[in-house]
Amino acid sequence: MNALENLIRQLSRLPGVGAKSATRMAYHLLKCDESYNEKLSDAIGTIKEKIHKCSVCGSYTETDPCELCSDPKRDHTLLCIVEQPQDVMTIQNSGIYNGMYHVLGGAIDPLNGVGPEDLSFRELRERIKNGSFSEVIIATNPTEEGDTTALYIRHVLQDTGITVSRLAAGLPIGGDLEYADRLTLARSIKGRVSF
Amino acid sequence: MNALENLIRQLSRLPGVGAKSATRMAYHLLKCDESYNEKLSDAIGTIKEKIHKCSVCGSYTETDPCELCSDPKRDHTLLCIVEQPQDVMTIQNSGIYNGMYHVLGGAIDPLNGVGPEDLSFRELRERIKNGSFSEVIIATNPTEEGDTTALYIRHVLQDTGITVSRLAAGLPIGGDLEYADRLTLARSIKGRVSF
Repeated sequence: MNALENLIRQLSRLPGVGAKSATRMAYHLLKCDESYNEKLSDAIGTIKEKIHKCSVCGSYTETDPCELCSDPKRDHTLLCIVEQPQDVMTIQNSGIYNGMYHVLGGAIDPLNGVGPEDLSFRELRERIKNGSFSEVIIATNPTEEGDTTALYIRHVLQDTGITVSRLAAGLPIGGDLEYADRLTLARSIKGRVSF
Repeated sequence: MNALENLIRQLSRLPGVGAKSATRMAYHLLKCDESYNEKLSDAIGTIKEKIHKCSVCGSYTETDPCELCSDPKRDHTLLCIVEQPQDVMTIQNSGIYNGMYHVLGGAIDPLNGVGPEDLSFRELRERIKNGSFSEVIIATNPTEEGDTTALYIRHVLQDTGITVSRLAAGLPIGGDLEYADRLTLARSIKGRVSF
């Protein structure tokens, strides 16, 4: 296997990249500016040294605690619980949330052997006990595993007196009723809001 | 900008990769095996040192001349002219061609200031003069620039007595007449073959 075939092979292991896209990328890298190759190679090679999990919320960060956890301007009485570190970025990008985060590191999924003990529930209990949270927003995915995890979180929080809410499920904005799947439509009818 | 944002930014400069795919890739790289990051980083960082243009045909290679040019089992009387190095791989993958290649390095495109002098026509003339080619297959893209380039190649070869052919244009195999675009359909009607 020569260097070009090796590069294509390594690129095609990235998520969402097939053989054709990997080939296109490889030829692009051969043609483009040398300095870009160096920057990209360096960014990939050093990412694991530079980025770690925040010891408070569990999201990825360069500093510890992360910028969000150590920002006094954010609302430290509001906690949003998500499955993955990238969910923090997604919610941050929406621009509507100004509280704290807690990353579970996944969802409860008994079929794949993931139980509550494999997720950061111990840390969650600690934070709830020592923190001053008045509301928790559950932002697990609207999937079976996310639903199970949401139920478990509610169970964990039941005697704390903290208000618990969950992200609304329903039709995506800009979507078309005709193209909505059966389950989403059922959820949006069941969860209809007064108007 | 932190290391993660930088990685996402560098990844999103790859062809066909938008902000969302780049983010997905970056989080994948944070989660996956450290050895993969090293392999990928290394493959990207060293590709330009390892891969060069073949001095004979102009395609990318680790050895010079490339494996195809130096293979005595291939038909050295047949020459296929392509625009880009990646076209060599595409035609090789079809498994039907066993001759030599010549990479022009692009197509004649006056609107973007690319003339014949910017492509490897001088090398092509040399190869034709010194080689023993009996047939040339023009495999430029079925675009306006590719058509112009094909006409120019025919002009270059006109007094050499070499048979000149061009790849057939028409309906893609497995395609649907209904979805064929107007130009392709027109080409396939104009170029209809006896049956």
